[in-house]
Amino acid sequence: MIDSKYGEHAQVLIQALPYLQRYIGKTIVIKYGGAAMTDEAIKATVMQDLILMSCVGIRTVLVHGGGPEIDALMGKLGMETRRVRGLRYTDAAGMEVVQEVLAGKVNKQLVSLIQAGGGKAVGLCGIDGGLLKARRATAGGEDLGFVGDVSAVDPSLVENALGAGFIPVVATVASGEEDARVIYNVNADTAAAKLAMALKAEKFILLSDVPGILRDLKDPDSLIRAANPPQIKSLIEDGTVSKGMIPKVECCVVALAGGVKRAHIIDGRLPHALLIEVFSDAGIGTMISKD
Amino acid sequence: MIDSKYGEHAQVLIQALPYLQRYIGKTIVIKYGGAAMTDEAIKATVMQDLILMSCVGIRTVLVHGGGPEIDALMGKLGMETRRVRGLRYTDAAGMEVVQEVLAGKVNKQLVSLIQAGGGKAVGLCGIDGGLLKARRATAGGEDLGFVGDVSAVDPSLVENALGAGFIPVVATVASGEEDARVIYNVNADTAAAKLAMALKAEKFILLSDVPGILRDLKDPDSLIRAANPPQIKSLIEDGTVSKGMIPKVECCVVALAGGVKRAHIIDGRLPHALLIEVFSDAGIGTMISKD
Amino acid sequence: MIDSKYGEHAQVLIQALPYLQRYIGKTIVIKYGGAAMTDEAIKATVMQDLILMSCVGIRTVLVHGGGPEIDALMGKLGMETRRVRGLRYTDAAGMEVVQEVLAGKVNKQLVSLIQAGGGKAVGLCGIDGGLLKARRATAGGEDLGFVGDVSAVDPSLVENALGAGFIPVVATVASGEEDARVIYNVNADTAAAKLAMALKAEKFILLSDVPGILRDLKDPDSLIRAANPPQIKSLIEDGTVSKGMIPKVECCVVALAGGVKRAHIIDGRLPHALLIEVFSDAGIGTMISKD
Amino acid sequence: MIDSKYGEHAQVLIQALPYLQRYIGKTIVIKYGGAAMTDEAIKATVMQDLILMSCVGIRTVLVHGGGPEIDALMGKLGMETRRVRGLRYTDAAGMEVVQEVLAGKVNKQLVSLIQAGGGKAVGLCGIDGGLLKARRATAGGEDLGFVGDVSAVDPSLVENALGAGFIPVVATVASGEEDARVIYNVNADTAAAKLAMALKAEKFILLSDVPGILRDLKDPDSLIRAANPPQIKSLIEDGTVSKGMIPKVECCVVALAGGVKRAHIIDGRLPHALLIEVFSDAGIGTMISKD
Amino acid sequence: MIDSKYGEHAQVLIQALPYLQRYIGKTIVIKYGGAAMTDEAIKATVMQDLILMSCVGIRTVLVHGGGPEIDALMGKLGMETRRVRGLRYTDAAGMEVVQEVLAGKVNKQLVSLIQAGGGKAVGLCGIDGGLLKARRATAGGEDLGFVGDVSAVDPSLVENALGAGFIPVVATVASGEEDARVIYNVNADTAAAKLAMALKAEKFILLSDVPGILRDLKDPDSLIRAANPPQIKSLIEDGTVSKGMIPKVECCVVALAGGVKRAHIIDGRLPHALLIEVFSDAGIGTMISKD
Amino acid sequence: MIDSKYGEHAQVLIQALPYLQRYIGKTIVIKYGGAAMTDEAIKATVMQDLILMSCVGIRTVLVHGGGPEIDALMGKLGMETRRVRGLRYTDAAGMEVVQEVLAGKVNKQLVSLIQAGGGKAVGLCGIDGGLLKARRATAGGEDLGFVGDVSAVDPSLVENALGAGFIPVVATVASGEEDARVIYNVNADTAAAKLAMALKAEKFILLSDVPGILRDLKDPDSLIRAANPPQIKSLIEDGTVSKGMIPKVECCVVALAGGVKRAHIIDGRLPHALLIEVFSDAGIGTMISKD
Repeated sequence: MIDSKYGEHAQVLIQALPYLQRYIGKTIVIKYGGAAMTDEAIKATVMQDLILMSCVGIRTVLVHGGGPEIDALMGKLGMETRRVRGLRYTDAAGMEVVQEVLAGKVNKQLVSLIQAGGGKAVGLCGIDGGLLKARRATAGGEDLGFVGDVSAVDPSLVENALGAGFIPVVATVASGEEDARVIYNVNADTAAAKLAMALKAEKFILLSDVPGILRDLKDPDSLIRAANPPQIKSLIEDGTVSKGMIPKVECCVVALAGGVKRAHIIDGRLPHALLIEVFSDAGIGTMISKD
Repeated sequence: MIDSKYGEHAQVLIQALPYLQRYIGKTIVIKYGGAAMTDEAIKATVMQDLILMSCVGIRTVLVHGGGPEIDALMGKLGMETRRVRGLRYTDAAGMEVVQEVLAGKVNKQLVSLIQAGGGKAVGLCGIDGGLLKARRATAGGEDLGFVGDVSAVDPSLVENALGAGFIPVVATVASGEEDARVIYNVNADTAAAKLAMALKAEKFILLSDVPGILRDLKDPDSLIRAANPPQIKSLIEDGTVSKGMIPKVECCVVALAGGVKRAHIIDGRLPHALLIEVFSDAGIGTMISKD
Repeated sequence: MIDSKYGEHAQVLIQALPYLQRYIGKTIVIKYGGAAMTDEAIKATVMQDLILMSCVGIRTVLVHGGGPEIDALMGKLGMETRRVRGLRYTDAAGMEVVQEVLAGKVNKQLVSLIQAGGGKAVGLCGIDGGLLKARRATAGGEDLGFVGDVSAVDPSLVENALGAGFIPVVATVASGEEDARVIYNVNADTAAAKLAMALKAEKFILLSDVPGILRDLKDPDSLIRAANPPQIKSLIEDGTVSKGMIPKVECCVVALAGGVKRAHIIDGRLPHALLIEVFSDAGIGTMISKD
Repeated sequence: MIDSKYGEHAQVLIQALPYLQRYIGKTIVIKYGGAAMTDEAIKATVMQDLILMSCVGIRTVLVHGGGPEIDALMGKLGMETRRVRGLRYTDAAGMEVVQEVLAGKVNKQLVSLIQAGGGKAVGLCGIDGGLLKARRATAGGEDLGFVGDVSAVDPSLVENALGAGFIPVVATVASGEEDARVIYNVNADTAAAKLAMALKAEKFILLSDVPGILRDLKDPDSLIRAANPPQIKSLIEDGTVSKGMIPKVECCVVALAGGVKRAHIIDGRLPHALLIEVFSDAGIGTMISKD
Repeated sequence: MIDSKYGEHAQVLIQALPYLQRYIGKTIVIKYGGAAMTDEAIKATVMQDLILMSCVGIRTVLVHGGGPEIDALMGKLGMETRRVRGLRYTDAAGMEVVQEVLAGKVNKQLVSLIQAGGGKAVGLCGIDGGLLKARRATAGGEDLGFVGDVSAVDPSLVENALGAGFIPVVATVASGEEDARVIYNVNADTAAAKLAMALKAEKFILLSDVPGILRDLKDPDSLIRAANPPQIKSLIEDGTVSKGMIPKVECCVVALAGGVKRAHIIDGRLPHALLIEVFSDAGIGTMISKD
Repeated sequence: MIDSKYGEHAQVLIQALPYLQRYIGKTIVIKYGGAAMTDEAIKATVMQDLILMSCVGIRTVLVHGGGPEIDALMGKLGMETRRVRGLRYTDAAGMEVVQEVLAGKVNKQLVSLIQAGGGKAVGLCGIDGGLLKARRATAGGEDLGFVGDVSAVDPSLVENALGAGFIPVVATVASGEEDARVIYNVNADTAAAKLAMALKAEKFILLSDVPGILRDLKDPDSLIRAANPPQIKSLIEDGTVSKGMIPKVECCVVALAGGVKRAHIIDGRLPHALLIEVFSDAGIGTMISKD
């Protein structure tokens, strides 16, 4: 007789149907980083999730950073990290390392994993096709070297890749707004949010190292499942959202203002967090939406 | 904390990935009938399976008969079933009932179920767009009335519907080869097999009321999981395949000869039999293929 | 010598030229019923007219009812017609008969006649592709069973068929607005008018059993050749238009309000009434237009 | 009551249906000249025929000469016609006149008539887009000046015009094969036949000043209605086909050899000869086909 | 060793790059006439310029007159030129000559030169496809015969030719607005300007016999390199722009008002004036633009 | 007066016309390396050449290596170069450096230069979209680590980029044939030649540090301007072609065998060597072609 597990499996597929109907043909932009990118086992499940989403027809875009790998190469090269008002200063030699690691190593390794899993991917960075333009950033008026703020997004190259069935994998270095030969390191969360806006994405997902916004950081059960921008504002004001979580929620709010339907901060340490978020009613992490 | 079931669900989706990669963009023709069509609970699962398959991008075609419903209306009308050499004779009044039940009632009801489930379907019959042409059939030389053998298939209407994202649902009445105004009742299994050939389908699936070809009809564990056409020939010769199973395996063999990659006889009484067959390695039923 | 009749024939073709230039590439929706559908000789000329119109490139849509055939099958089944405030009440068994006769028998027979004449046709009903949605109708607050009012039209399936060169033949049963599995019988004149609106048709033609609107019902020479909506309103108010003609002119007025250029009530008993109306200056019947 | 003539008119349209079904979407090349071009009343009927054919979707191409008009301008300019072995010698000044009259006057006047009648036409000559290439012709080894034999046809410009719904009107001057700046006068019958071949035309129609091939030139009833190439050969050998008719039948035979289905020599003096030939079973003139 | 000239040549190509980047894919309409058309050596360089521009992907349209050639043929025919208020009166016979020379001789000769140089061209006139419609012009209320003012432009035929990679060469005769069979002679400068408007051209270039607008007609160094419409108005008012230059600048101003970006009056006597204007910063002639 | 230099410039553009006509719409693959890539001034001229070629519509592909930059980073990291039979051995850490430098630094820097010059470029490597597959290479049976031989090319991603108007810039790292996660360093000359084959390129150009094949290495005037494959074989056999030139000519011969029309070895140290080769008759370097 047929194993009963197959019937259960079919049930699971059927439960995914409403989510398939909702997202097929739509664009989902995922910011990838943190533990989900350093833990090889978790990374393998993220790749599977991306391949599945792209395979069924969801227009899937992956944006990544790569801080730890940059630090590692800088360390090997004996380069010291200089900080200005707590922010990393990037000199010309450092920018070269950033570019090599993000666009050469991390980006192409992610592409190789997707291709190895039977998916189709193309590795891009903000320089390609004028995708991301940046202007020099400062911290309290002080120069940060080759650190930039994304000032313009031209998504045509990414749309071309999506139209041809590829998963665009994007490393967040950008060309200078005034001189495209000058390369800047840009914040990956913000770049991903701005790309999501330019692509009129249905969803923007931040894979992070926390379960979402917690009322009490020590209590995972205190997860705030949903919030709208005014509520986010209050949460920042009352200190519930603090430190490193502030820029994350802020780029979610920016994405919504720019037309993205829903932004999510989810726990990338959870295996298959993407599939669970996209194809079930589990409602993991915190969803930020206008309503 | 996130319920562990979601992780398991994600696993199931990931297990479906290789099958999605194999069948998306390909055509699967399903002959639907028997218990799978009379049991309302099972019918509901078949509809879900079709919607899911079509939703992810498998070109899904449903061909159906409707014997019991024809008998029911004939009964109400007090029409008697005349048989010639064991085969039903269809007179003009009977043909009218066949057409009304197959193309009017059963066909459109299936369409309504798919549409109600969020799928897109269009109900067709062999008359539409010259889809199925038939010539008058005989049994041992004796006339069977308006019973026909499919003599030509023009799949362009079905391909048009598939191209626009619809599930074509096909009732097996056909137009006369010489006079298109004369309508014939044609065998649904054969019509489905010939349509699968004309569409160069990847798979042809016969939903039946048995688990597949059994070496011992009383022992479900004696299922023959795979056979090629020469083996099928032997199984008929040695009596393993007999009676009503003979025409079923024969139309599978015909489909293969016409270019269909794989034909399957599976147990339609099993909930979600289609999903289990298409998206898992369960290997339910008997697969007939050239290799 | 060449027979002089050929020269005359050429003259006739040339007289059709301005009408060809006006209507090729445009959409004409025809409501078909009454004597034009029951008289086999007339029916044959209607089919020829449709084939010719479609062949030269007029986007031709046929919408039909089938009252007499429904009554016939109900009669054979011993079903009684119950009336509420003069309107037919349709119970579940009756609805089944309606669906069988309209979508199974009448619809597919019309398709077979067009195909037999060398045209291309596809038989659809309001259930297919969500073409017609209905909500339960009432008569003076009293329930009429499975009788519905068309509440939404999704013409994409019909447009797809027209784009592929087919004549869509539409049976007027519809899916429930809230539950697509519930099927309703809808008024064919209204359904045709609403489909004409949704298709932005150039012309909407009602084939009826009268010469058009007559000032004096006993005098065919009292035909009103043209009227605009305000004039129609007056004609209803002064009793010139009365009884069964009222809903007919009202659905013409609705079609005009929805963007259809011209609506016509013409005498379907006249052989080739469609060709005469579309390809000549004969001005048969009554034309209702805004100007 | 409706005038009975409209019923008869509808009958005529219906009789045209099989011919519409056969020729819509196909290409018909017409060589236009002789009385059909000089008699203004007849010319008007030819224009109507072309507009009608193009309007319903027949890909209609008109190729014309213009001998009498050339002679007229030459006369006014006091230019004498020199003949070599009975053929006109064309010097540089004469070629200028040919080009002016054919491509400037006759061609554009035909275009203006089609446009005025509501058709869409574009006037081309063999120079445009490299449509017709010619090499210098000789008569028995003696030079004929700027008279050329068509050596190559590039139909892409004509196909482009047909694809955009225009009737290409083609004047038969051609560019030199070796030097495109040298313009040649080419025989219009042959150029039309070669263009018909290049376009894989369904029909090639020569509008002439005779009823077709006659067994007895004095007896119109002796018309040969159909002949195949071997029969044509015999008719030339036995003298039935003689003088000016020989090159006409020969270019028909050449067209057939090049893939054109049917060639016709018909009487252009007959009003609406084209419509009668294309849309009826009148079988005017002589049809030359392979079978 | 490689000749140093090749390095210089490469430099020249590189200098053309910004202009290529600006104009590829854009439309440039050129009015061709005067010395540039009568001097064979200059004509050859104009043809090369057009071929090059079209080859790299600039949508290039050539509009031409042909006054001297018309006069020549009229002279040969002994036709006298009658003038009304200083303007040429065109009678029916004269119009025939205009049409023959412009659309038959000059137009097709230009096409033959482009084709001979490896370009793709098609010769059109205002009659073709209803390109130019005109209404009868008058001079101070007095009739000028078949002289017309362009009243409507339908650029679809020209756009079709551009889309297929051809250079449309347009002779400026037009069809009557009310009766398309009546042909009018229209001013070529104005017709070109109106066609440029209809095509939303980037540039409109008038090839003339002067260096541009000169402050002092005797001093070529007094060239006004750029002017905007108000400045043009002043230049007319103060008499700097006078006589035959007035209609030229006026049709430039009209073109600008109709959406053309830049209009140029340049010296067609200069070899390769078009290339110099389009592909360099030479700024020959006078540019008229809004800013 | 207009400067005479503009006339000369126009002449140069006109001289480029036949080459534009020959190459627009065709594919040219350029292998870029050596001095042309290390000398910043020369590099700037190469970028200009690429932008110009792409701008006018030549499908331009750039394939690059980056040996010196790899050595530089390895040096900074204190990595020693191990050699096996004279060939570099690449261990895992070395491969990481290769990937970072080629795909991250050199590739994206080239893209930034093209974008800064107004061109459109996208940086790819052999991993992206499965572009280049490799199997492990050996030297005389001895392992070379992560050095691979190109075993398969899937040019679809490059064709997609060309179709969208981008210059694909390709770094020559490849995915393992059996396990796409394993990355190999592949020879850039060979990879470029194989990509040229897969793209059915018209031209394959190797930018090298020599003038081409010299009969006498000390005498630049001894340049062999053209050779066919048999002649190349002789030149290798007689020692004229030796050492590092052997693999270069061999990959040219391979490209020709695979359908590329012409292969060129030209001196990349010459400013604008590409433009001179493509747009003039200078015939710099050695051309290898079948005839």
